[in-house]
Amino acid sequence: MHRELVASLLDTRTLIRLTSLAELDPALVIDDFGTPEARAALADAEIIVSSWGCPPIDEAVLTAAPRLRAVLHAAGSVKHHITDAVWQRGIQVTSAAWANALPVAEYTVAAVLFANKQVLRISSEYRQRRTRRDWQHAHPDLGNYRKTVGIVGASQIGRRVIELLRPYDLDLLVHDPYLERDEALALGARAVQLNELCALSDVVSVHAPELPATRHLISRRMLALMPDGATLVNTSRGSLVEQDALVEELVSGRLSAVLDVTTPEVLPADSPLYDLPNVLLTPHVAGSLGNELHRLAAAAVDELACYTAGLPFAHPVLPEAVHRTA
Amino acid sequence: MHRELVASLLDTRTLIRLTSLAELDPALVIDDFGTPEARAALADAEIIVSSWGCPPIDEAVLTAAPRLRAVLHAAGSVKHHITDAVWQRGIQVTSAAWANALPVAEYTVAAVLFANKQVLRISSEYRQRRTRRDWQHAHPDLGNYRKTVGIVGASQIGRRVIELLRPYDLDLLVHDPYLERDEALALGARAVQLNELCALSDVVSVHAPELPATRHLISRRMLALMPDGATLVNTSRGSLVEQDALVEELVSGRLSAVLDVTTPEVLPADSPLYDLPNVLLTPHVAGSLGNELHRLAAAAVDELACYTAGLPFAHPVLPEAVHRTA
Repeated sequence: MHRELVASLLDTRTLIRLTSLAELDPALVIDDFGTPEARAALADAEIIVSSWGCPPIDEAVLTAAPRLRAVLHAAGSVKHHITDAVWQRGIQVTSAAWANALPVAEYTVAAVLFANKQVLRISSEYRQRRTRRDWQHAHPDLGNYRKTVGIVGASQIGRRVIELLRPYDLDLLVHDPYLERDEALALGARAVQLNELCALSDVVSVHAPELPATRHLISRRMLALMPDGATLVNTSRGSLVEQDALVEELVSGRLSAVLDVTTPEVLPADSPLYDLPNVLLTPHVAGSLGNELHRLAAAAVDELACYTAGLPFAHPVLPEAVHRTA
Repeated sequence: MHRELVASLLDTRTLIRLTSLAELDPALVIDDFGTPEARAALADAEIIVSSWGCPPIDEAVLTAAPRLRAVLHAAGSVKHHITDAVWQRGIQVTSAAWANALPVAEYTVAAVLFANKQVLRISSEYRQRRTRRDWQHAHPDLGNYRKTVGIVGASQIGRRVIELLRPYDLDLLVHDPYLERDEALALGARAVQLNELCALSDVVSVHAPELPATRHLISRRMLALMPDGATLVNTSRGSLVEQDALVEELVSGRLSAVLDVTTPEVLPADSPLYDLPNVLLTPHVAGSLGNELHRLAAAAVDELACYTAGLPFAHPVLPEAVHRTA
């Protein structure tokens, strides 16, 4: 992993658990498998604990690591470092993608509740007017009672959003090409096609992976289907939304948005998205950050505890699932 | 109730249920018990459905309403219209206070999740800088993992906030002079004294009633106990917080705040609270508003259905509980 990441990932509690479960040198952090230090470590390694910045574990690495049995990934996607060679050797892989999904889901829950209630819009209006106003009359349809929220993508994040939104009086819709109707109902949502979801939802929240097939999934046409006053929440990747069309809808004031991701990731300084009162814009921070990184390391160490006890992983990564996830 | 409130409270679905359960004139709305129209209605009335703006139901009203058996309040507190005479006659009272608590609890959940993640602060910084930044390095302690949230007041709202925050990795503290330790544990929170709560919490959220005893409950001393970077959320009443001291802590940047209520309720135009980047200010909108008013009427009609079926109310108001609630 990136060397500077270690201090952010491992809090004292988790470091103590890690050293009690395995023989390791806490000072040894590898970001290049080709160094002599890395080669020496690989020769003995039974387990790799990886995170962002881990180089690909390819044939050469595997040849240098004859005893390797498992890779515990203290981050989300394993696409960048788990090669086909890892699967072919039967090495077990586990990921903290479930833990990495939580902060994004939490950000989304707050975004949905504030969007339906128009909290940021009203705050902005109050700051401008600084007078008493009949907010009921100004926003007769605000509130979180019986509003419809559409979840695009039954990913780990999308599923967690649905779970977390269950205690509210919201109608939940979900769209995912891989989700069966009954599975959606068991989650607490109704499975619909994307155009129906966009047309019916007061808030549309995007939780699909970035793939060629999902580029501009939220197209100009889908945005046009969204009802007046609806909000788009995007915490996935900028490419999933046809941003030119979205900007038009936002500048006109017809839609609102909560955007943690955009195209490009830092917007040009003259982008209207920075200043619109109907847009909450954040710089790709919804995912694990700050103390939320500790959860990822704790998750990897939980899996290590399973491994050392001879138990199966709680969150194994299966090769067949990798291709349709982010 | 206020005449103009009826259209906001009763959606078509609830109006149809109401007229199917009881004989009533949907056009008859009383905001003054002294009119001939009101007197005629009271002579036959078995049930009063009340809401904000209902005048006191006193001896004179009760004498004019010999058949009155129950008051169904489609709002929160019954303090303003349920007099001792109502209790003395043994008239049953029910309130939608539980339903009125939900929007405030929902606003609070969103405020807590965004506060720990510093979403609004980061959004504001991003808008100013418009450049790439190492947000992890700038805010190493941000995030909702193992943060501590202190709930001041185990009111209906406070309890609902605790319930809604249970699925997150938060340590929940609660302070309430009427709450037993075991009852707090059953809710999912640890009961502590107010000074301990303030000293330990990353977010302090106020849900106590406005009473002489709660004036400036969150005093200068309590605010000083809060850790650097902590957030105060107030959705109760401005009087519970020593606002001069809070403004000092906010202007210095040591604390942040989410304030739906202030003293006075519309702040003077030169108040620093309007413009501080560490303050989210809203004009007393966290309670039921917009479609959330429909929930209150639906709650009253649910109670009417219990009454007509000979069942006890789901949410009765008991005279002994009135004095320590808002």
